[in-house]
Amino acid sequence: MTMKRKKVSVIGSGFTGATTAFLLAQKELCDVVLVDIPQMENPTKGKALDMLEAGPVQGFDANIIGTSDYAETKDSDIVIITAGIARKPGMSRDDLVQTNQKVMKAVTSEIVKHSPNTTIIVLTNPVDAMTYTVYKESNFPKERVIGQSGVLDTARFRTFVSQELNLSVKDVTGFVLGGHGDDMVPLVRYSTAGGVPLEKLIPAERLEEIVERTRKGGAEIVNLLGNGSAYYAPAASLVEMAEAILKDQKRVLPSIAYLEGEYGMEGIYLGVPTVLGAGGIEKIIELELTDDEKAALSKSADSVKAVMKVLT
Amino acid sequence: MTMKRKKVSVIGSGFTGATTAFLLAQKELCDVVLVDIPQMENPTKGKALDMLEAGPVQGFDANIIGTSDYAETKDSDIVIITAGIARKPGMSRDDLVQTNQKVMKAVTSEIVKHSPNTTIIVLTNPVDAMTYTVYKESNFPKERVIGQSGVLDTARFRTFVSQELNLSVKDVTGFVLGGHGDDMVPLVRYSTAGGVPLEKLIPAERLEEIVERTRKGGAEIVNLLGNGSAYYAPAASLVEMAEAILKDQKRVLPSIAYLEGEYGMEGIYLGVPTVLGAGGIEKIIELELTDDEKAALSKSADSVKAVMKVLT
Amino acid sequence: MTMKRKKVSVIGSGFTGATTAFLLAQKELCDVVLVDIPQMENPTKGKALDMLEAGPVQGFDANIIGTSDYAETKDSDIVIITAGIARKPGMSRDDLVQTNQKVMKAVTSEIVKHSPNTTIIVLTNPVDAMTYTVYKESNFPKERVIGQSGVLDTARFRTFVSQELNLSVKDVTGFVLGGHGDDMVPLVRYSTAGGVPLEKLIPAERLEEIVERTRKGGAEIVNLLGNGSAYYAPAASLVEMAEAILKDQKRVLPSIAYLEGEYGMEGIYLGVPTVLGAGGIEKIIELELTDDEKAALSKSADSVKAVMKVLT
Amino acid sequence: MTMKRKKVSVIGSGFTGATTAFLLAQKELCDVVLVDIPQMENPTKGKALDMLEAGPVQGFDANIIGTSDYAETKDSDIVIITAGIARKPGMSRDDLVQTNQKVMKAVTSEIVKHSPNTTIIVLTNPVDAMTYTVYKESNFPKERVIGQSGVLDTARFRTFVSQELNLSVKDVTGFVLGGHGDDMVPLVRYSTAGGVPLEKLIPAERLEEIVERTRKGGAEIVNLLGNGSAYYAPAASLVEMAEAILKDQKRVLPSIAYLEGEYGMEGIYLGVPTVLGAGGIEKIIELELTDDEKAALSKSADSVKAVMKVLT
Repeated sequence: MTMKRKKVSVIGSGFTGATTAFLLAQKELCDVVLVDIPQMENPTKGKALDMLEAGPVQGFDANIIGTSDYAETKDSDIVIITAGIARKPGMSRDDLVQTNQKVMKAVTSEIVKHSPNTTIIVLTNPVDAMTYTVYKESNFPKERVIGQSGVLDTARFRTFVSQELNLSVKDVTGFVLGGHGDDMVPLVRYSTAGGVPLEKLIPAERLEEIVERTRKGGAEIVNLLGNGSAYYAPAASLVEMAEAILKDQKRVLPSIAYLEGEYGMEGIYLGVPTVLGAGGIEKIIELELTDDEKAALSKSADSVKAVMKVLT
Repeated sequence: MTMKRKKVSVIGSGFTGATTAFLLAQKELCDVVLVDIPQMENPTKGKALDMLEAGPVQGFDANIIGTSDYAETKDSDIVIITAGIARKPGMSRDDLVQTNQKVMKAVTSEIVKHSPNTTIIVLTNPVDAMTYTVYKESNFPKERVIGQSGVLDTARFRTFVSQELNLSVKDVTGFVLGGHGDDMVPLVRYSTAGGVPLEKLIPAERLEEIVERTRKGGAEIVNLLGNGSAYYAPAASLVEMAEAILKDQKRVLPSIAYLEGEYGMEGIYLGVPTVLGAGGIEKIIELELTDDEKAALSKSADSVKAVMKVLT
Repeated sequence: MTMKRKKVSVIGSGFTGATTAFLLAQKELCDVVLVDIPQMENPTKGKALDMLEAGPVQGFDANIIGTSDYAETKDSDIVIITAGIARKPGMSRDDLVQTNQKVMKAVTSEIVKHSPNTTIIVLTNPVDAMTYTVYKESNFPKERVIGQSGVLDTARFRTFVSQELNLSVKDVTGFVLGGHGDDMVPLVRYSTAGGVPLEKLIPAERLEEIVERTRKGGAEIVNLLGNGSAYYAPAASLVEMAEAILKDQKRVLPSIAYLEGEYGMEGIYLGVPTVLGAGGIEKIIELELTDDEKAALSKSADSVKAVMKVLT
Repeated sequence: MTMKRKKVSVIGSGFTGATTAFLLAQKELCDVVLVDIPQMENPTKGKALDMLEAGPVQGFDANIIGTSDYAETKDSDIVIITAGIARKPGMSRDDLVQTNQKVMKAVTSEIVKHSPNTTIIVLTNPVDAMTYTVYKESNFPKERVIGQSGVLDTARFRTFVSQELNLSVKDVTGFVLGGHGDDMVPLVRYSTAGGVPLEKLIPAERLEEIVERTRKGGAEIVNLLGNGSAYYAPAASLVEMAEAILKDQKRVLPSIAYLEGEYGMEGIYLGVPTVLGAGGIEKIIELELTDDEKAALSKSADSVKAVMKVLT
């Protein structure tokens, strides 16, 4: 009969981490601990305080603190990892993978120490391989280590379809499988507007353009911003996954899940439809795929495996 | 019987402007046009698109666009000005004032051209003098040119009191008069927790510390961030004022209003309690002040006048 | 640049009408005028006042009044009709139809007099024929006279599927065509859980039971209550339609719309997928139907026509 | 690290109980068990199902069941008691008290059996004596047995003041002590509009009329309805108290609390300002009262004691 407030820790106080913290507090889902490295402690505290001061005006009541001390994350219900570097000009993909792998290992070791029963959601790229790294390092059961990509990809797809048809985003659904970005496998036949399959509303050619824009949705924002990458929609996506778990909602959301036979895959993290509830990934939903879809998913898995080979 | 969507334009796509745009859309209060200078057009578009892509996940349905073309702001119901520069090391106060004055003039001229019947809310610092500049430049009736400072100051005060007493921010009220920052005149005797005057709950000395921390609340965040200033709470404050106007709520909120005799002041913009509704500032509430409070308000007005003298 | 509050009038202050008024105010969508006959004026005022007194606690700010004077409904943006009698034991269907037809005529004449440009949403049963009556009596363009049934039917279907699969209702979609109740034509192939077609998740036989339960969903509540009929879900359905119109959301929602050739029907009101926005029914979405679905829809239309013949 | 859904049981499925259940679910605060006597089991199930079917449309995801079996309430985080009879014409006050006392005893015994660690909120009238009855029967610590009256009284007061001044209810605060209804002790000097004491905004005479209207606020609704009493605002009030406890919000809300020395009272339940959090009534806030206020509170306490004497 304990009614203690729930607690979510967000690792990495960059734009995505900070926005995630704010959106969590705004919904009064939990108290929030925003964590970054010691050199970033003051800015992290500053962001947390600024958010907290928005509470009286926005009408939310949740504590938000900034810190570099993982002891503050003790007994978190969920930990969200946004830490890591972005690929810089001249940096090889392997360098990126190995640098972020180190970050994941360091971060995970701290998380596990202070919240041995928590559920971890990973955003850091390349997200499939990073989620795998956290899984291995944490020794957590697979259902408690989850990667985000599909909620965001779907959100982008829904936005573009909504604009195309001039219909509310509330009534557009989308469905993706596989890896993030170029390796995304959209299941257009499962995507609808007001229940009507998109294939009946949008010419095939135009729909393919929308799918392609979705695949490159992250790059589109990067190119526009010039400096930095998207954070509003990624943060909102993380919060939707966290809410499903905190409220035990049994939401059907695409997650990067550890596959052990599902979809014919073994031992890799890949984006698939899942049921998220208090137990983390409570179920992986298996769909019959067409041959084309199978081939695309297989290609997507190959990309993930290629990255995993770079892990040390 | 028109039910066209409402429209708010936000000038300046920095952190505060962007966050303001996001919070407006999130509440489905209006469609949002985020405006910046041509050199910033792409980043502005990028931020707007990123926010839009959060809509399907957060469940809001509002259009957000980024642009450098004021024609897009046509017939805005409200325009919020966050544009301008921050004081940099080595810059004199007069330089700051005159630079931002130029920005206000340029921005206002565009606003008026495209939305002659709009209501303008100003955040740019020094906010009292900048609101005055916009008022003069726009030739708008005084009730449709409003500055923000008191909602934010009060929010900070409420946050600190809530922490001090370990009570919900929802039940803490605060009350400030006068200018922003150091010139803020807190009316502690009108501030309560759950209806109980704070003076009965917090020792006078400690309460004075909290007031002082509130006065320096902006600087506290600036110092922590190291680079940049607060934007979550300022944006939330702007949105609360805009919502009161868009929904004709008759909210009693502190605003920077043009005084013509009220509180014994003439011809200056100063923070006072106001009623905000569809007509903008629909009423200025006059309070009896103690002699101390009168003196403090007078001092605050003197500071504003000193800045106004720098205006060209 | 007017920002006057929106106004919705709800005709009939029974449970459904009252709950509709409350849900509208709670969302701060508009001010609400709850109207009933002079003999019910005091209870109507009592309900309105009680709701209003919930505002400070629930944090909403909308005016709600009860009245028997249609002058108070002047210039409503939307009028929702819930008035009319329910079928009583021993009453023939024809008596019900003719009695409610008289109510619709009287109510519509008052609505039109005071709000010539409003949009009308009808709930009163038999809803297809009553919507037709209001359409004829009002002389309004067809897009501004709309009946509710499909939002409610779909909500029930989604509830049952959600329970069957132990998944969040947020991720279950449904799709119905045709008349209310027994004549409902569910398009199961367009209904999904998390994007996955229900046919892949629920055995055909069990799915048919859920469809049948949905068809009889109103009667299930009537039988349980013993005295009276459902009002929470019907009210919520009316509010969703009104919100789509008030906010110009371009929602894809099933509505009872006047068909002039669509789906091969001419001159009757029937449930079809529509786009709801500021213009009322802005579009009717036509789907290809299977032969079975065509036959079911035709049968549904025949039922509606049979009722229409009873209209005087 | 359990994230099981919270659970609130509402005893009594009349209008207030049902509305309370709906508002709890709507906020996704918890799953809800609506309980009534076996003869009312079907209507209770019907209401619960109708509410549940509103979920997909209103976008909430919470389970609601109706039952007459207290086993379903097992391990409730909070139990809210709305059961009991209303005073009927010709019924003496003593009959009312003794009848409802029996109901409280029966209900409490069942609650305690199935949820020994729960917190109980009582609404049944006469609420001070009924809360005392539940306290005695439950053997719970006093902080886990709480009565509702002040949140509702304050809400009514705020509504009336808001109308008087044409200001948003969001900015009007009120403050009451003592018993419900005629014995309510309003502390007008602690009541404000936008922080401004009401005494400065409303003439004393008019303010007294508003206070008097508040005192008779329940009767005003009863008289208007003709048959039955208020339920929207009472339900909203119960939900605000429950939310404060479920979310451990440390809200400062007026509650009917067991006094052991506070305000000079001993061994009675009386309305006082309290802090509500996970621990139930975590604190009673003591205010200095004027002599007039002391006298009024003492008179209020006498009324409660007179009713308590009727308890068997």
